[in-house]
Amino acid sequence: MLEKTTRMNYLYDFYQSLLTPKQRSYMALYYLEDNSLGEIAEEYNISRQAVYDNIKRTEQMLEQYEEKLLLFQKFQERQELINQLKGTLLTNPSKEELLTFIESLEKLD
Amino acid sequence: MLEKTTRMNYLYDFYQSLLTPKQRSYMALYYLEDNSLGEIAEEYNISRQAVYDNIKRTEQMLEQYEEKLLLFQKFQERQELINQLKGTLLTNPSKEELLTFIESLEKLD
Repeated sequence: MLEKTTRMNYLYDFYQSLLTPKQRSYMALYYLEDNSLGEIAEEYNISRQAVYDNIKRTEQMLEQYEEKLLLFQKFQERQELINQLKGTLLTNPSKEELLTFIESLEKLD
Repeated sequence: MLEKTTRMNYLYDFYQSLLTPKQRSYMALYYLEDNSLGEIAEEYNISRQAVYDNIKRTEQMLEQYEEKLLLFQKFQERQELINQLKGTLLTNPSKEELLTFIESLEKLD
């Protein structure tokens, strides 16, 4: 569950601009601010089930956007390379070694 | 016009997965393979005006996606940094200089 929350937080971060204002509100309350479905239902004066359905649909949309655009996956790949590059920098690398990293970063786009 | 074509080629590259198969076909024929509106109309047996309207709408969609997700803009910023980093590598930079670039790259996401 924690893993899913982390993933949803990232996907929300990357794709929130493609959601409707209502979808953004529910997702932010549920995933970022850790409100319960009941609390959100009360705040918006709708049924708990309606909140649940909306959030489930939004989660599916976020996963579909990720399937198509891979922004989270590419972000992770870039961060991984950048971390390796930082580690390599501590070992007095040659210019060639550094260039290899930089070219891998370039190719990721 | 050449500038617009280049921009549309990039936007198409970043967002084509969000288009319908028909939109993708028309855009690819027009922008990537440089067919005329008339040639596309003949190929699909529809009016030149219908092809034009479809392509105009698709261009607007691509610009709206870019407004929301900024994938092309971020790509350009990253490429610019990577090119600067490559240039700096030729000048025997200190680790601190290199680290500054790497951290700028990290922050771009």
